[in-house]
Amino acid sequence: MRDVSIAAAGITPAGEHWESSLREMAVQAVQETLNHANVKTLDAIVVGNALSGNLSGQNHLAPLIADYAGLRGVEAFRVEGADASGGLALRMGYLMVASGAAETVMVLGCEKVTDVVGSARVKASATTLDSEYESAQGATPVGVAAMLMRRYMYEYHVSVADFANFSVNAHGNGSKNSKAMYRNLIKADRFAGAPLVAEPINLFDVAPEADGAAALILTSAERAPDLTDVPVRILGSGVGTDTLAVHERPDPLFLSAAKLAADRAYRQANLSPSDIDLFELHDSATIMAALALEASGFAARGEGWKFASENRITLTGDLPISTFGGLKSRGNPLGATGIYQAAEIVLQLRGEAGANQVKDARIAMAQNLGGVGGTAVTHIFGR
Amino acid sequence: MRDVSIAAAGITPAGEHWESSLREMAVQAVQETLNHANVKTLDAIVVGNALSGNLSGQNHLAPLIADYAGLRGVEAFRVEGADASGGLALRMGYLMVASGAAETVMVLGCEKVTDVVGSARVKASATTLDSEYESAQGATPVGVAAMLMRRYMYEYHVSVADFANFSVNAHGNGSKNSKAMYRNLIKADRFAGAPLVAEPINLFDVAPEADGAAALILTSAERAPDLTDVPVRILGSGVGTDTLAVHERPDPLFLSAAKLAADRAYRQANLSPSDIDLFELHDSATIMAALALEASGFAARGEGWKFASENRITLTGDLPISTFGGLKSRGNPLGATGIYQAAEIVLQLRGEAGANQVKDARIAMAQNLGGVGGTAVTHIFGR
Repeated sequence: MRDVSIAAAGITPAGEHWESSLREMAVQAVQETLNHANVKTLDAIVVGNALSGNLSGQNHLAPLIADYAGLRGVEAFRVEGADASGGLALRMGYLMVASGAAETVMVLGCEKVTDVVGSARVKASATTLDSEYESAQGATPVGVAAMLMRRYMYEYHVSVADFANFSVNAHGNGSKNSKAMYRNLIKADRFAGAPLVAEPINLFDVAPEADGAAALILTSAERAPDLTDVPVRILGSGVGTDTLAVHERPDPLFLSAAKLAADRAYRQANLSPSDIDLFELHDSATIMAALALEASGFAARGEGWKFASENRITLTGDLPISTFGGLKSRGNPLGATGIYQAAEIVLQLRGEAGANQVKDARIAMAQNLGGVGGTAVTHIFGR
Repeated sequence: MRDVSIAAAGITPAGEHWESSLREMAVQAVQETLNHANVKTLDAIVVGNALSGNLSGQNHLAPLIADYAGLRGVEAFRVEGADASGGLALRMGYLMVASGAAETVMVLGCEKVTDVVGSARVKASATTLDSEYESAQGATPVGVAAMLMRRYMYEYHVSVADFANFSVNAHGNGSKNSKAMYRNLIKADRFAGAPLVAEPINLFDVAPEADGAAALILTSAERAPDLTDVPVRILGSGVGTDTLAVHERPDPLFLSAAKLAADRAYRQANLSPSDIDLFELHDSATIMAALALEASGFAARGEGWKFASENRITLTGDLPISTFGGLKSRGNPLGATGIYQAAEIVLQLRGEAGANQVKDARIAMAQNLGGVGGTAVTHIFGR
């Protein structure tokens, strides 16, 4: 396999974009990204999107975006794995370049959630669960995550307040990110009293679904210097899966897909958790952040929450996470989230993260989860 | 890139499977395929599916299938490009093996259409068109194809009856295929008088949507002999796209995505149309068969229909098509269609096609279209 680098990254604001359609947001991200690299031709566009068929009545999305972006005819396809779609699209683009089948590939994540509101939106989100054994009984992703959090609190004797700093940190970092959805600060002592969403998960705990689009340009490491002065290398790439239904897992409090994905990426990169300078994890709820830290080798079982309570996750901590706000503050644009994570890492590794910069960041990891951990995609990047 | 071979193919019957769920059909195809090869481990499952989010309330499909097939944890993801999803999944599996990232990959196409009937089904199918400029105005895939057929008949002075042999041939071949959905014969002189679906497309002209699942096992050409005595090589692989909305195309009667995809596959395989012994094309309607023959270099503009009227497409003709019934008789299981095509070609190139055998078939091509030609995927295979 050839080595692959990211030559450019483009981020559009995550949020509620009532004035923009899915295709408009996607085109905006394509153009924003093309502005950042000296690219003449693209061989393919890989689109990560979770729910356009249900939320926008639009399947067959990739050729539409290629056309509207002025790239009619280019190879284009969509990859879907719930909110891990963006990470999966990155992996496919990576493999296209690594194989030699393509020289230059755009990987785009896009999601338009605000075209549908209320119960129809919840129903669409629930299509990422097991349709026969979870969503048919009324389960939703946040409801299932809430059951995990309840069990975790019981098993490890922790309280809601112990998770507070995951959100405090995310909003602290997001407050400095002009592309973030919610830039307000959260106070730790207000966290446990926030309005409930799915007990014990509350409004300050769960990440908001967002409209958003972001993109990357990948090319071979050899060719990358022709496109940019600041390429970022993809060092490892791994995908793991698990049952969709959480109740089918022998050990529901362990995200085995995340462990598989992380181990596969570590092995390829020949690195271990101690080498990671920052970690963009999938904080769709604080419990998912805690479990991701455990499954990915940073914390022992039942101790992931301490990364928050001991305040080790800030920009100056031993493992900065959610450095641009994470899903919680920047927003969770579902199938675009994995591309936002990678694009934010590009800024960190280039030293272009401004007020969000992690000092001397050289190795960074992104982990994108689908559903409640049915899919996990992990990438490790180096400058 | 490494050379890649198909080590095994498994086909389940296409049809109306009221008794089976999507996951059950998928698992059946996985098991059927594993029975045909000496495979110990799989590195990944790539799932091609068009509409499960809309028709089964199930996105995030790939990990679910991996789990139910007894392969929990394996890398798994879904590729979506309308009814070209199967062909796209094959291409992704091909690239995974070609890159060296995977040794052995299963590529699965599956679709469950009969969970939804009537206008809800039509609405789901229409999500493969442009949601803002086609389906919002009531357009459906067959309705758009009907407009192309009408225009073709006008431009080239042909009649509905001139297309008859596309369906006569398909049903003649399908009548000998135990996996085909409709095994009845069609008489040429009854074709033009069949009940209308979307004038001038009638019931004998349009392919039926079907439930179905089929799978392939891919591995490196070097390793294939360990898995099977009869590997089939993938010689070329190409994807092209076009506008989703047919009215946006400068020349609506030319499937430019099909030309791009075919040319890319020919170039990689270093072959031309005259080398192709049989062609599994996307006969979702007879007009699409005629246009595919033109765009792929077999017929001049306006002359694709003559392949039918001159009866050149039978098993003993100069270009056999739809050798197991094609979409018309075997059925069109949307996102599984591209895998059915490839699996049928495997049987042909191995000389295992029985009553459907094309004599001395050595090089075969499959072309899978999405929507009304917004996506085209072409693969060329050799024994």
